[in-house]
Amino acid sequence: MTESSAFRTDRYELTMVDAAIQSGTADRECLFEAFARRLPDGRRYGIVAGTGRLLELIRDFRFTDAELTWLRDNHVVRTPTLDWLADYSFRGNIWGYQEGEAYFPGSPLFSVEGSFADAVVLETVVLSVLNYDSAVASAAARMVSVSLGRPIAEMGSRRTSEYAAVAAARAAYIAGFASTSNLEAGRSWGIPTMGTAAHSFTLLHDSETDAFEAQVAAFGSSTTLLVDTYDIRSGIDTAVAVAGTGLGSIRIDSGDLPTVVAGARAQLDSLGAVNTHITVTSDLDEYSIAALSASPVDAFGVGTSLVTGSGAPAAGMVYKLVAHRDDTGEWVSVAKTSAAKISVGGLKRAVRRLDASGTARAEVVLVGGDPADTTEPAEETGRDRVLLVPLVTDGVIDERYLGAAGTERARLHHASVMRELPIEAFRLGRGEPVIPTLYEHR
Amino acid sequence: MTESSAFRTDRYELTMVDAAIQSGTADRECLFEAFARRLPDGRRYGIVAGTGRLLELIRDFRFTDAELTWLRDNHVVRTPTLDWLADYSFRGNIWGYQEGEAYFPGSPLFSVEGSFADAVVLETVVLSVLNYDSAVASAAARMVSVSLGRPIAEMGSRRTSEYAAVAAARAAYIAGFASTSNLEAGRSWGIPTMGTAAHSFTLLHDSETDAFEAQVAAFGSSTTLLVDTYDIRSGIDTAVAVAGTGLGSIRIDSGDLPTVVAGARAQLDSLGAVNTHITVTSDLDEYSIAALSASPVDAFGVGTSLVTGSGAPAAGMVYKLVAHRDDTGEWVSVAKTSAAKISVGGLKRAVRRLDASGTARAEVVLVGGDPADTTEPAEETGRDRVLLVPLVTDGVIDERYLGAAGTERARLHHASVMRELPIEAFRLGRGEPVIPTLYEHR
Repeated sequence: MTESSAFRTDRYELTMVDAAIQSGTADRECLFEAFARRLPDGRRYGIVAGTGRLLELIRDFRFTDAELTWLRDNHVVRTPTLDWLADYSFRGNIWGYQEGEAYFPGSPLFSVEGSFADAVVLETVVLSVLNYDSAVASAAARMVSVSLGRPIAEMGSRRTSEYAAVAAARAAYIAGFASTSNLEAGRSWGIPTMGTAAHSFTLLHDSETDAFEAQVAAFGSSTTLLVDTYDIRSGIDTAVAVAGTGLGSIRIDSGDLPTVVAGARAQLDSLGAVNTHITVTSDLDEYSIAALSASPVDAFGVGTSLVTGSGAPAAGMVYKLVAHRDDTGEWVSVAKTSAAKISVGGLKRAVRRLDASGTARAEVVLVGGDPADTTEPAEETGRDRVLLVPLVTDGVIDERYLGAAGTERARLHHASVMRELPIEAFRLGRGEPVIPTLYEHR
Repeated sequence: MTESSAFRTDRYELTMVDAAIQSGTADRECLFEAFARRLPDGRRYGIVAGTGRLLELIRDFRFTDAELTWLRDNHVVRTPTLDWLADYSFRGNIWGYQEGEAYFPGSPLFSVEGSFADAVVLETVVLSVLNYDSAVASAAARMVSVSLGRPIAEMGSRRTSEYAAVAAARAAYIAGFASTSNLEAGRSWGIPTMGTAAHSFTLLHDSETDAFEAQVAAFGSSTTLLVDTYDIRSGIDTAVAVAGTGLGSIRIDSGDLPTVVAGARAQLDSLGAVNTHITVTSDLDEYSIAALSASPVDAFGVGTSLVTGSGAPAAGMVYKLVAHRDDTGEWVSVAKTSAAKISVGGLKRAVRRLDASGTARAEVVLVGGDPADTTEPAEETGRDRVLLVPLVTDGVIDERYLGAAGTERARLHHASVMRELPIEAFRLGRGEPVIPTLYEHR
């Protein structure tokens, strides 16, 4: 692995550039669009995530000598194409939904304008990032919506590949998670990190008492003690005996949680540890979090279901050519027309139609609209909030979306978007998208 | 992201090291074991993958100034622990199932012996890699087993995060896939890469004929032409008209495949393109591949379902402390005992019990056996094939398992393992593991 992101790429992108250079079509100005034909699995909404990460990968998308040598040695493309790749950096424009935004079927959430060659080579990296990060954020948002304000920690690094883990922590944070176990996510994206001990720490010691004493000696009584290695009831007794009634928190990682949690709360209270929090972390997902809504849980930790998108591990986004300019400079809409995979061609704007109370009522895709147009259409009874913002202009990335600051910005934007959705969005059961997507031809 | 893999780690590993250094238990010699309590989702077998990649990450697991500074600034651990981390490299022993091997519930597939601190800090990276790569390889093996020898290309990079994509391509190749679309997988692991064009290439041109002519001019008539952008029937006519009857292959990415493929074959034959291959790539998984067993398909391409583990995106492996040495040097078995998540403590060997015909009949876990013991137990009516091999000895990695050569070795080993499994292993329907796991206490 090198620092360049250019090989996070499917071979066919480079062979297309090669053939297009040969045929003289590589410089044709094009608009590509990333969108999802449908939401996964009965979901009511999706959440766009990965944008900030993706912009950094686009910035680092350069073919260095290492890539060029490999391509030459493996006869992937010919010399004129190697020369073109050597000079490559993205020079076009990108508009996109802000990171953290809700999306619906057909939402034109990432629009790339540039020469065919400039834009097509980004396909894989665009989709890898948006499909994975949005899958995680979409699952995370559902978990947050049923957590009733109680903090959720992301703890899924051990259940997805080692780099995806960092992306997942970031996506979950944008969607409202409070913290992550993953150190790289802390370092790279400024996300608060958490974690104290696993069962192995207790098993290492000659007794649970020894283990708790060691942990309290190191971190003080405000630490979180994992009480379910042997017997939860005696574990809680031991925890309070060792740490005192000022014990910060206990963590429970197994058992029938509503029952166990209720018993643990009563036991802590009877021991005088009335301010000791209860954190639960046992294979949780949005459904088991919802099932704990009446339980005295203070915090959740979620792993597997979060990083695997809770049943929808890829968001189903595609990256399609929707228009190119003809020889006179006019935009020509194009779209695949065979079989079931229909696309809507053409440039597009997108607005979220809000009613007078500020509640979202429709996703409106303005076919033929200019994505660069940020004026808000007039609405008599509400507001049309413009969804596309300029992310890259003539190859220059808007830096407000990058790094830890961009991540924090996305988290704030997400919180405001969620307040806008109709209440039906937060029902966990399968259903239709909570607002319809309307295509208006301009 | 830096070159060090040390921050692909959950914070609690470092806090455990910190507390153990404080309490004097950090140097206790321990055995940790990665295993799966069950196979996902009615599967008959699982495939271990990621081992070679993981060994490279363990080699690169060093805390450089960048990591140490961040840990100090964020008060994650105290100074003695920072000093310990600065000197860290794994100094112990690791035994594991060979990459590509089948595994079953309880198989002790990755056993790490070292001081508590040495071994516990590897937990996240061990599980991230084994859980993801094995999920992909396990899905891939099922697809290969129903492909009837026809090659399958891995094309899932756009459906998982950009680094996971590389790992997925590698895992699929080990499990018998023929090639990948991912360039980094080609460069890093020596996997054959493939790919020609997407629908956007056809849409870019003023006609399908123009697009096919451009592609044939660039790559010759042996290329693969994607024929379903508009109408498949006219697409095939155009393809043969442009490339001639020597056209290498057509690719079909949509439609009711058994019907479409039969029609395409008849049409190609009637046009004289009797040697032109048919590749299909439309949202395939093991079930749709099996449904095409009687269809004249020559090659498959699989994306989403492969990289998301076809319904089981994480293999469910855990990394548990199973034994530590007491003060007299004797091994003490340890295991969590509360609630449902029972583990079997103790050192373990593992053998696959084969009958006289060489068919696997049981996964035998020899509790109390020495993982370093590679002698084959005598069997009257068959053979007990030893499953654990030394991967790391006193901190020195066996280099035969690394890089492209290690990947190729794993692919070969996998092929031999699959020949050993009972035929019932290859039924796609849900069922029990195809052989039982027997615990024998020694």
